[in-house]
Amino acid sequence: MTSPCQSSYPQHPSMTDTLYHSPFLKACRGEPTPYTPIWLMRQAGRYMEEYRQVRAKVSLLELCKTPDLAAEVTITAVERLGVDAAIIFSDILVLVEPMGVTLEFQKQRGPVLHTPLRSASDIRKLREVEVEEALGFVFEAIRQARAGLQPHIPLIGFAGAPFTIASYLVEGGASRNFEHTKTLMYQDPESWHALLSLISRTLVAYLNGQVKAGAQALQLFDSWVGCLSPSDYREFVLPHTRFVLERIIPGTPVIHFGTGTAALLELMREAGGSVIGVDYRVELDQAWKRLGAVGIQGNLDPCVLLADRKVIEARAKRVLDQAGGRPGHIFNLGHGILPTTPVDNVLALVDFVHTYQPRSA
Amino acid sequence: MTSPCQSSYPQHPSMTDTLYHSPFLKACRGEPTPYTPIWLMRQAGRYMEEYRQVRAKVSLLELCKTPDLAAEVTITAVERLGVDAAIIFSDILVLVEPMGVTLEFQKQRGPVLHTPLRSASDIRKLREVEVEEALGFVFEAIRQARAGLQPHIPLIGFAGAPFTIASYLVEGGASRNFEHTKTLMYQDPESWHALLSLISRTLVAYLNGQVKAGAQALQLFDSWVGCLSPSDYREFVLPHTRFVLERIIPGTPVIHFGTGTAALLELMREAGGSVIGVDYRVELDQAWKRLGAVGIQGNLDPCVLLADRKVIEARAKRVLDQAGGRPGHIFNLGHGILPTTPVDNVLALVDFVHTYQPRSA
Repeated sequence: MTSPCQSSYPQHPSMTDTLYHSPFLKACRGEPTPYTPIWLMRQAGRYMEEYRQVRAKVSLLELCKTPDLAAEVTITAVERLGVDAAIIFSDILVLVEPMGVTLEFQKQRGPVLHTPLRSASDIRKLREVEVEEALGFVFEAIRQARAGLQPHIPLIGFAGAPFTIASYLVEGGASRNFEHTKTLMYQDPESWHALLSLISRTLVAYLNGQVKAGAQALQLFDSWVGCLSPSDYREFVLPHTRFVLERIIPGTPVIHFGTGTAALLELMREAGGSVIGVDYRVELDQAWKRLGAVGIQGNLDPCVLLADRKVIEARAKRVLDQAGGRPGHIFNLGHGILPTTPVDNVLALVDFVHTYQPRSA
Repeated sequence: MTSPCQSSYPQHPSMTDTLYHSPFLKACRGEPTPYTPIWLMRQAGRYMEEYRQVRAKVSLLELCKTPDLAAEVTITAVERLGVDAAIIFSDILVLVEPMGVTLEFQKQRGPVLHTPLRSASDIRKLREVEVEEALGFVFEAIRQARAGLQPHIPLIGFAGAPFTIASYLVEGGASRNFEHTKTLMYQDPESWHALLSLISRTLVAYLNGQVKAGAQALQLFDSWVGCLSPSDYREFVLPHTRFVLERIIPGTPVIHFGTGTAALLELMREAGGSVIGVDYRVELDQAWKRLGAVGIQGNLDPCVLLADRKVIEARAKRVLDQAGGRPGHIFNLGHGILPTTPVDNVLALVDFVHTYQPRSA
């Protein structure tokens, strides 16, 4: 363990040599890989028959809270697809319940938080989260998934970023305009920062707990941060995301992901993360030019997987050529797989990414 | 009429000297103005009591199709707010009905097109639109609004851009992922281009008809184009938008607007328009730096108008300072006014923009 690269990323107890040298973790560290590693956001999801069978028996939240089932769907997806990393099955909102907020997933509307936070006093009522006690089911799912995965497949833990979690807490669900979130932010910055500080403290313990349970890497999902201007991001978000990322157990690669972030990429990098996840709204070569020496994950439009194999290969080729075989590219979609995606199309994509030799950048 | 500026923008018959020298039209031409002109997308809308009174009697579509009422709400908004331009009350989707598509506005869901286009044969069934016959109610509303507006207030006509109209036709309504639209685009580019060509031909006649009826400027709304990558925009959208913009009656300023366009600004400029409308996801000074010698419209976040006067003024000041008093800035929101906006906040904004002297860029 004397190479400079290894000393800057000391190995965690759960890390075996096989895992350490897997293409996914090499790419996270910016090291060359024999082929471009690929995994897909929501790879264990509704588009897959095996997943639907499990979901026929339990709700989404029950699945998240049942470690053996969460581990099962995590492992099944990797084995079915032949991707290079697993991501623990969970939802970014599992941490709002222990904060004292009721969470429900409705068929049409998605997540619904019945008591959205709209005032300073709403925010003051939130509880600090004891992650071992409240979110131990996630750690247990990670332990079981790690035990059940093939030894060369790294396991990714994840959480929602402070802004995205806050937007759900304040809006009470998904949103188009984020008007309650922004009104709180603009009108009462003190309460806003108190809310993001609370979430951030929770995230540090939650993400590190996932690493201790056996995750080899982490992804921080700031899925909705693209609704903000760069100056709002700098003032209201960056300090909190940086607080979280600076406190992750050293040596753990973190993928920092958002959508609609064409104007935010440099600021996201400033906030932290060893790999920046980008969506399809930016060209990968442009993103890399702007970001410099950092890993990049992305960025095929999930809608491409609804087209035929010829289109999928042509479009995957474009992404790979834009990455140009640079060390540090992790192939992924620009956002989660759509529920209507045919599994065969995903298999075709994985196969193509594993065999195509990109043009040099 | 010998100045170079005037000769490059010859006057249309409906253009009086007073209108020609109004701050809004000067800014459209990149000429200095005594103060920054302002108007607001959806300035005649649900946030305003006078508008709600009219809408209590008629549906949205009926309002669009009743010229005296459409003219009335157009004029009322300008007079109530003291803004520098009127925009004809209408909806970007009025042109889909004469194409043969049934349109309905539902209270919760917004626009619903009951027979979304999903195949080449669906698209072949669309009808060419005779705009005078099918959309004459818009031209009549413009004539009446022009006649009723104060003589110094320019009237803006508008339409949806080819991509945004196509996305509604293909999705059958609003969309989060635009998966049907993109699948058509990727899988059957020939049908896609046929669809956009048809829409574009209609738009040329429709927009020029609005100018002939008495609109002094136009805005092309490509509201949802920000869901595309730059390369998709270049291949699937730019040629059609350019087709439209190249055929607008010479001398008519066109504001080319989109949201989420941080990665698309240069391409939108390449497609055309004398003014580029930007949303709040880019900083105005950055946008201007990238776009060079063109007018810019924007870009206050509509959510700011839900905060108090102090916040509104501070945020409007930031926009105006970023514009730095450059000729060619038209103040607007980054997207339409939200229905929950207090009218007094809009009045405070208009007053501030009219009196504040921006720091020089």
